Amino acid sequence: MRMYDIIKTKRDGGELDDEQIRYFVQKYTDGEIPDYQVAALLMAVYFEGMTKRETTTLTFAIRDSGETLDFSGVGGVRADKHSTGGVGDKTSLVVMPIVASLGVTVAKMSGRGLGHTGGTVDKLESIKGLRTDLDIGEFKRIASEVGLCIIGQNKDLAPADKLLYALRDVTATVDSIPLIASSIMGKKLAANDDCIVLDVKVGSGAFMKTLDDARALAEICVDIGRAAGKKISALITDMSEPLGNSIGNSLEVAEAIETLRGNTGGDFLELCIGLSAEILSLCGFGDEEKCLSAAKKAIADGSALEKFARMVKAQGGDERCIYDPSLLERGKFSREVIARSSGYIMGVDAEKYGEACLALGAGRNKTDDEIDRGAGIILRRKKGDKVFAGEVIATLFSNRNEFDEAERKVMDGTLIGEERPTHGKIILERIV
Amino acid sequence: MRMYDIIKTKRDGGELDDEQIRYFVQKYTDGEIPDYQVAALLMAVYFEGMTKRETTTLTFAIRDSGETLDFSGVGGVRADKHSTGGVGDKTSLVVMPIVASLGVTVAKMSGRGLGHTGGTVDKLESIKGLRTDLDIGEFKRIASEVGLCIIGQNKDLAPADKLLYALRDVTATVDSIPLIASSIMGKKLAANDDCIVLDVKVGSGAFMKTLDDARALAEICVDIGRAAGKKISALITDMSEPLGNSIGNSLEVAEAIETLRGNTGGDFLELCIGLSAEILSLCGFGDEEKCLSAAKKAIADGSALEKFARMVKAQGGDERCIYDPSLLERGKFSREVIARSSGYIMGVDAEKYGEACLALGAGRNKTDDEIDRGAGIILRRKKGDKVFAGEVIATLFSNRNEFDEAERKVMDGTLIGEERPTHGKIILERIV
Repeated sequence: MRMYDIIKTKRDGGELDDEQIRYFVQKYTDGEIPDYQVAALLMAVYFEGMTKRETTTLTFAIRDSGETLDFSGVGGVRADKHSTGGVGDKTSLVVMPIVASLGVTVAKMSGRGLGHTGGTVDKLESIKGLRTDLDIGEFKRIASEVGLCIIGQNKDLAPADKLLYALRDVTATVDSIPLIASSIMGKKLAANDDCIVLDVKVGSGAFMKTLDDARALAEICVDIGRAAGKKISALITDMSEPLGNSIGNSLEVAEAIETLRGNTGGDFLELCIGLSAEILSLCGFGDEEKCLSAAKKAIADGSALEKFARMVKAQGGDERCIYDPSLLERGKFSREVIARSSGYIMGVDAEKYGEACLALGAGRNKTDDEIDRGAGIILRRKKGDKVFAGEVIATLFSNRNEFDEAERKVMDGTLIGEERPTHGKIILERIV
Repeated sequence: MRMYDIIKTKRDGGELDDEQIRYFVQKYTDGEIPDYQVAALLMAVYFEGMTKRETTTLTFAIRDSGETLDFSGVGGVRADKHSTGGVGDKTSLVVMPIVASLGVTVAKMSGRGLGHTGGTVDKLESIKGLRTDLDIGEFKRIASEVGLCIIGQNKDLAPADKLLYALRDVTATVDSIPLIASSIMGKKLAANDDCIVLDVKVGSGAFMKTLDDARALAEICVDIGRAAGKKISALITDMSEPLGNSIGNSLEVAEAIETLRGNTGGDFLELCIGLSAEILSLCGFGDEEKCLSAAKKAIADGSALEKFARMVKAQGGDERCIYDPSLLERGKFSREVIARSSGYIMGVDAEKYGEACLALGAGRNKTDDEIDRGAGIILRRKKGDKVFAGEVIATLFSNRNEFDEAERKVMDGTLIGEERPTHGKIILERIV
């Protein structure tokens, strides 16, 4: 078999057979096929796409490129949630404690942020002392004892995905549904949970800009998961506005804690309850109503908060911040962004706010950039809110006293109009 | 400027600006942009194409990636001919001596064969002692003293082309008209002749399989050459049958010499005279009729043969073979391919015969393969000829006694039918 023929087949619009797909994934992981041939293939896939069978085979090949987690000794139903990435998306920090408090085992591997989207691992590390680089033994032990553990991606799982993603990132081949689907599902299947709920974001702050694309991605991921014998579903959720009222690592942890304490509402809480209920439902907890009310109760009775506190402590973090989020870091410097006109907030653009956050130092342009965990934005107004000229729209935080670019982006991303806009739902569709 | 943005622009169907094109060619040549990013760009160009302006800028950037030949001291009008590659194409060995004998200066750099197509340098090296690796000083001296010198590609000219071609060759991005055009013309413009005639082949044995593609390639090349201030034209010529009656390095040299000696006719002679006249016409020799008759006379009076003999001697070759081609090597082993039925030869497929020649050891699958200069095929029958079952269609030669694959390919490539086919012209179109 020759890599040249694999590239040419895809270039000419042909379908790759299973053997060809497994060959290139394995040989690339082994370092036997050079980057430049894989780059050419990825670009051909960008243009010619992949069938459902090809995408499924690619996903399984990525899963099989390394180790697969084995939780057979731990017991219980193990569930995971995956978000395709958004702005202000601290959902995992609320949803996983909720479902764990209700008896679901959560042993989750999360990613770091890149570009204008954040990552759960970066957020968690804002909690002093908390370690996300635990080895598989500790990971299993905490998951077994506490029922909840969240760590970074393990390098032995789906190594082909790391190689492929790094190459896609520098060759403009990220935006391809079969490549995105196989990357997400290859990792998830290697993590080997029983139940998987996907949160596929759509809107300006998401990779998927249209509902059609989001639906296509959700459908292929669900199909692949099911083909691998998993219980799986997907929610398509709105990412045109940042989620909740904060963006930036430690600010988002604070908001997640306040949510677990029952002190928030709005879009973010609605999404967290919806995702929690979806996981519970997949895990066989009961009908929709039962799952929804159990999720709400886990917040109301403090059990989700307590579960999160136990996890933070078990992973070496300072759990005092759970009871007093003001202990979390916040940028030394701040600036208030002021409305220049009066009216209703017609929309707050997730991508622009995400870029503003990046300009404040909260994110990474390249994977090895350092990040400022105290940097970020607190949104004082969101879509539908009334605002008067001179009032604060948002507060920017940073440990370096540079706010001009971020302020400009926040101003650009905030549309003020005369008529009150109607509010859409945060959960747009459910794909099963 | 970032290579990522250049890839993304082309991927999204956009037009690259001059600065972007010059940037990636220069930085790639300097080793500052990795192969994998260029591979992704080349595949995006394969799908999205390039405008005439983009292709012209790419060509000039390739030309400017290294040195440019300066023949200002040599004097006279300097001309070159470039063939896009075919089977049995020994045209340069006849055309260049003809025009040189008529006062045109020929200092030509030629390529080696790859795949089923041959290369002039490999053919010339069948002449014992002949050196094609002369330095630029010797090259100029012989061109000046003899008026005719043919050497291999110089590594200091258009180095970007070598890098890009090597990458295209392993990433299935060879078959792209803007990439082919910029590769041909980048090298030709670095060689800096006054007049250039392109022989764009079309048919089964050529890169261009359709007349439309051949015409598109010829037109863009002529446009680019003219934009660079050159006198240039192109002939589109038929490559559905092998050219002449022999394929393989030393066999083709023998046929070229016989042609210069006035001992052949048919398609090959017709093409040589046509190309010679085209060059003479570009060089200002006179009208079509005058150019055609001068070219024929150069063969008839032996002046072209004498010019070739002088070149062979000047480049260190054994010129006795010019007067006795039987001195040229011929494979130790041979096999005759026999017709299994009687009728007319409906066609001899250039690609199949080229592959047969490759199977005999006469060509290269990879650029560093060794070749057997004595291997090849002598065609005993061509399109339109009558044949009886049991008669010889072709004779195969090789220095290793393995003929089965080649014989099968020759049989496959020879169609025998009942009705005599009509003969087309060898020169199909002229693009000026």
